[in-house]
Amino acid sequence: MKALRYSTVGQPPTIENIPVPEPVGGQVLLKVLAAGACHSDEFVMSQPVEVLGALGIGLPLTLGHEGVGEVAALGPAATGVEIGDQLAVFGGWGCGRCHTCATGAEQYCERAATLGIRPPGLGNQGSMAEYLLVDDARHLVPLDGLDPVIAAPLTDAALTPYHAIKPVLPKLVPGSTAVVIGVGGLGHLAIQLLRALSDCQVVALDIGADKLAFAKEMGAHHAFTSDDSAIEAVREVTGGKMATAVFDIVGIQPTCTLASRMVHFQSEIVVVGVGDGAVPVGFFTLPYNTVVRAPYWGTIPELHEVLALARSGTISVETETFALDDAATVYERMHARTLRGRAVVVPA
Amino acid sequence: MKALRYSTVGQPPTIENIPVPEPVGGQVLLKVLAAGACHSDEFVMSQPVEVLGALGIGLPLTLGHEGVGEVAALGPAATGVEIGDQLAVFGGWGCGRCHTCATGAEQYCERAATLGIRPPGLGNQGSMAEYLLVDDARHLVPLDGLDPVIAAPLTDAALTPYHAIKPVLPKLVPGSTAVVIGVGGLGHLAIQLLRALSDCQVVALDIGADKLAFAKEMGAHHAFTSDDSAIEAVREVTGGKMATAVFDIVGIQPTCTLASRMVHFQSEIVVVGVGDGAVPVGFFTLPYNTVVRAPYWGTIPELHEVLALARSGTISVETETFALDDAATVYERMHARTLRGRAVVVPA
Amino acid sequence: MKALRYSTVGQPPTIENIPVPEPVGGQVLLKVLAAGACHSDEFVMSQPVEVLGALGIGLPLTLGHEGVGEVAALGPAATGVEIGDQLAVFGGWGCGRCHTCATGAEQYCERAATLGIRPPGLGNQGSMAEYLLVDDARHLVPLDGLDPVIAAPLTDAALTPYHAIKPVLPKLVPGSTAVVIGVGGLGHLAIQLLRALSDCQVVALDIGADKLAFAKEMGAHHAFTSDDSAIEAVREVTGGKMATAVFDIVGIQPTCTLASRMVHFQSEIVVVGVGDGAVPVGFFTLPYNTVVRAPYWGTIPELHEVLALARSGTISVETETFALDDAATVYERMHARTLRGRAVVVPA
Amino acid sequence: MKALRYSTVGQPPTIENIPVPEPVGGQVLLKVLAAGACHSDEFVMSQPVEVLGALGIGLPLTLGHEGVGEVAALGPAATGVEIGDQLAVFGGWGCGRCHTCATGAEQYCERAATLGIRPPGLGNQGSMAEYLLVDDARHLVPLDGLDPVIAAPLTDAALTPYHAIKPVLPKLVPGSTAVVIGVGGLGHLAIQLLRALSDCQVVALDIGADKLAFAKEMGAHHAFTSDDSAIEAVREVTGGKMATAVFDIVGIQPTCTLASRMVHFQSEIVVVGVGDGAVPVGFFTLPYNTVVRAPYWGTIPELHEVLALARSGTISVETETFALDDAATVYERMHARTLRGRAVVVPA
Repeated sequence: MKALRYSTVGQPPTIENIPVPEPVGGQVLLKVLAAGACHSDEFVMSQPVEVLGALGIGLPLTLGHEGVGEVAALGPAATGVEIGDQLAVFGGWGCGRCHTCATGAEQYCERAATLGIRPPGLGNQGSMAEYLLVDDARHLVPLDGLDPVIAAPLTDAALTPYHAIKPVLPKLVPGSTAVVIGVGGLGHLAIQLLRALSDCQVVALDIGADKLAFAKEMGAHHAFTSDDSAIEAVREVTGGKMATAVFDIVGIQPTCTLASRMVHFQSEIVVVGVGDGAVPVGFFTLPYNTVVRAPYWGTIPELHEVLALARSGTISVETETFALDDAATVYERMHARTLRGRAVVVPA
Repeated sequence: MKALRYSTVGQPPTIENIPVPEPVGGQVLLKVLAAGACHSDEFVMSQPVEVLGALGIGLPLTLGHEGVGEVAALGPAATGVEIGDQLAVFGGWGCGRCHTCATGAEQYCERAATLGIRPPGLGNQGSMAEYLLVDDARHLVPLDGLDPVIAAPLTDAALTPYHAIKPVLPKLVPGSTAVVIGVGGLGHLAIQLLRALSDCQVVALDIGADKLAFAKEMGAHHAFTSDDSAIEAVREVTGGKMATAVFDIVGIQPTCTLASRMVHFQSEIVVVGVGDGAVPVGFFTLPYNTVVRAPYWGTIPELHEVLALARSGTISVETETFALDDAATVYERMHARTLRGRAVVVPA
Repeated sequence: MKALRYSTVGQPPTIENIPVPEPVGGQVLLKVLAAGACHSDEFVMSQPVEVLGALGIGLPLTLGHEGVGEVAALGPAATGVEIGDQLAVFGGWGCGRCHTCATGAEQYCERAATLGIRPPGLGNQGSMAEYLLVDDARHLVPLDGLDPVIAAPLTDAALTPYHAIKPVLPKLVPGSTAVVIGVGGLGHLAIQLLRALSDCQVVALDIGADKLAFAKEMGAHHAFTSDDSAIEAVREVTGGKMATAVFDIVGIQPTCTLASRMVHFQSEIVVVGVGDGAVPVGFFTLPYNTVVRAPYWGTIPELHEVLALARSGTISVETETFALDDAATVYERMHARTLRGRAVVVPA
Repeated sequence: MKALRYSTVGQPPTIENIPVPEPVGGQVLLKVLAAGACHSDEFVMSQPVEVLGALGIGLPLTLGHEGVGEVAALGPAATGVEIGDQLAVFGGWGCGRCHTCATGAEQYCERAATLGIRPPGLGNQGSMAEYLLVDDARHLVPLDGLDPVIAAPLTDAALTPYHAIKPVLPKLVPGSTAVVIGVGGLGHLAIQLLRALSDCQVVALDIGADKLAFAKEMGAHHAFTSDDSAIEAVREVTGGKMATAVFDIVGIQPTCTLASRMVHFQSEIVVVGVGDGAVPVGFFTLPYNTVVRAPYWGTIPELHEVLALARSGTISVETETFALDDAATVYERMHARTLRGRAVVVPA
């Protein structure tokens, strides 16, 4: 089968022919219907080999941790799915047996590092291929009629902001304001999720008139340039109250610093972006009791919820599709920042 | 001043002239801008005098527990409000000092019964008058520009379903379904609140084509007749899953029984209506772990939130306005079920 | 192997010889180390054959839904456990793939009824045998050094009250009072759990001086006879506040009625006992906003937590052990109410 | 009356004679029964005059923000308390009317800074005097029999860690571990609170054998020196899992850094100490989804709960009492670190 493989640090990934894997035990083989491309792939491809080793990522690696497919073959002990089922892949694989995995938050598995369990496309072979091997049916959620091209990015680009937003919802009461910094693949979904799940005022911050216009199209009440002027803009549209939550989808130091300057007492800052920034939390650094966290991906129950949300028609995902043969160009386009919304590779 | 007084059990209320009250201590005198009429008033006027006594309600009683006004005079120790401020009245008065009141849930005050503290219009003199005396500024929430005619019904007809819905929101994840039984003053707001605060599917149940059409106008995804056929209808629109929450705004035995037959494991039934029905909860009476409660009114922080929600334009309140001189006709119309939405008395 | 089989409605269960099952797929065969006896077994044996059929229980049935064992054999696709591991069995088996199962609450599986999935000892063959076949390793939690005789009852007699108590803990703040009705297998653990997990005052209700003395030994601050006099007793020891939570471990109508008469506004009543009683919830039946539920068993993460709690030495389980050959006498003793604490069958 | 006044930056506070204040409006005059001394007082006295100005603290200032007293006189509009009542003072005064104050979290008042509202002893005149003027009865909680000397430190030294711990309790399930860094006035109470409110394992960190022994006396399961060796010690006593929560009662950079190195995924770090340290939160700085916050003091409902907890006998407060005339020596002793537990000034 064809697969997009990252083989040599510093070299772009290429399409190669590799054998179709065979499912054993409880494994499930999916014919890939759609595979999303993510900035984390770029992050992986920018790391030296030692860092990859420390992350448990060996080369060559088939890229792609967002995937949707149709069951093509079942291991002899696979249960709960049938040949032909269309399913979304939950990528945050864990051991399935520790206390944390038992709650469905397998992406925070207590033993994955010890056991060497890695997500597809981030250690295991990924979804940018004709077929994808999934370790267990519990990592598969039914599409129930969703378009695979829409569903693929939901497994990360929607699931990640959903997981970031959900614990904050009890604070996002009517009259409150949420700020989203960064209006890209995850950010344009964060805006829509906030509108769908709360009555809060949504403010988007980014750079460039097109991004700000896009944010408003996605439902943001206001969109401002993400520099220091945004602090006063937030003050104004909140009547001086400032924001109850900031979702920093960029995660570099300037955005983290910006986030920490636009919140009030008891607010929430969620660093979602895989950047090198940080928000320092101490008695004198932030308004009292501001809660800061940097979550990772989402849980299995949350993936069910995100798919249901898309099924209800509440959110729309901006996608640009590519043939598998053209998959390498996705990352060139990503690097050049010329993608709008999420790039999805469709092998068939 | 003129006031709508209920003076004799069994006789309709009448407009009478009584002295304008004078604020002492921390009291605040409001010039009433709008006063909403509620089915609870009807309930009060249908009770024998012994029940009224047991409820702490003496006659004559100025009706009206939904009120909005402008500060006309201040007691010498009143703080935090100024002459001319437009404010909504929180009616669930408590002692302000017990553990429960300290959380803002004064309607559940631990000592109100002992101390004889009663809401305006339900023991204290109410808002269907030119002036209303409020015991303390902590029971007043700024309108901040809201139309008084809209704000008055928010203080009960929106606050009560908001308080019923808010604790259920964590279960109303995308893919879930909420049922509202009864599409009147509270029900039409319950539908809108569910749409504003979650992505769940909303099903409304009532009797009559106009009510069902009204429910859909308010945002219900589906509206069905509230008889046994509704059970299969709910089964169908949920793909067999049944409802995650039922808000029974009627509260009589047939609706309580209906509610208990359309839920799944771990669902929620909230009996909101002041009816004589009940949902029996035992190991064999309901799907496992269905949570049932009958809340009362709402809290002070929740009133802030409801007003903010209306200010954001997310909910609309159906109102019909009446002059104070015509206030008695409101209850005739209510009894005849010819009101659509909430009746609001505007004294000026 | 020997197994305690319930074969004919109305006849006591008997020890029989049946073949040792062989694990296939992802199944795990346990050599049983300890199996607890529960009132639910009695309930099953008191039902006519049609009710058993409706419950998905066919005869003959090996009894026992509380089990602890050592891995004796593995199906070819079983992962995550090793031969010789000592493990507790989570009995509330579900499909493992629906939204609810993904949260670990498999006992509330959305599809178990449809798929015919039943717990061991309550449809599937149970633990009162030399060997027990478990469908999947995800239903097994490591003992990590716990005594199997202690661990067996924890899987239901402690897990069930733990699951009942855990969602109530945020209300059981210092100064609050919890009442436990019924001081038997589950009740003596409920008392200890409340003491371990909160600072609330614990009141136990039961009949007979020995039960009341036992309740105090287990940590109850007060123990009273469970009749109407208990209402005044609770009033007194709460300074008039009444109880914040009542756990009715009996679940018959008199205890349900008692529960509903000793709570205050916003309290919680949890009907834990598998009885035919019910608490009616409506606007006029209970103090405002009292929350009532009848949960079932517990979740997988909660089983981890209960085992950890026992491991920390915080709770003690009263047990009486029996050889497998004497297992039938357990239910005679249960019926005669002469057991103190939990009966545990030890096959070896 | 005599009062301990801080009058000149850089000079120690002195006992002076000032007029007894007179209550007006809703104010309440307390005869002080006990006043606790806190490190925050030391912090105030170490600041230059400009910082004090920015904090809203003018000189001279009567010290003391922990206070308990008996009602000596009432303003004409004061309600809800009577002459002779013994009451604890909630010090985090707010406006009482904003959304936040309505929830009882007045210490996070949205308008206190704008309105110039300050706590007693930290802007308003404090409790280290014969009499204390309290702005409103809602800031007073009944002792209900508690010893005033015990109750005074509860209003901050227990309330502050209680407020820090309470939101973390749902994660402190059996099997989890909490670390307390710093075993002084707040820390020795944090240890006891964790033991009283959860079944988690408690590890205390500090310097010096006496502190570590004291921690164990207070209920810590383990006590280690608070340097880098503590990381391995925590790893060992948690079987490699690391801590679910760290309460850093010191709050300087070394303790913040230590905290960030001993937690696991989804844990909590609470910076309680008023130090200049901070925990940087970003995608690469901490285990995923570790939640970090720096809360301030506690809420009014929480003060009710803390007093109830002490009343139940669950926690003990280490105190050393001083006459008012000797109050200045308290801060000398505090500076010399020779106090064990909390210093309480008893004016009478």
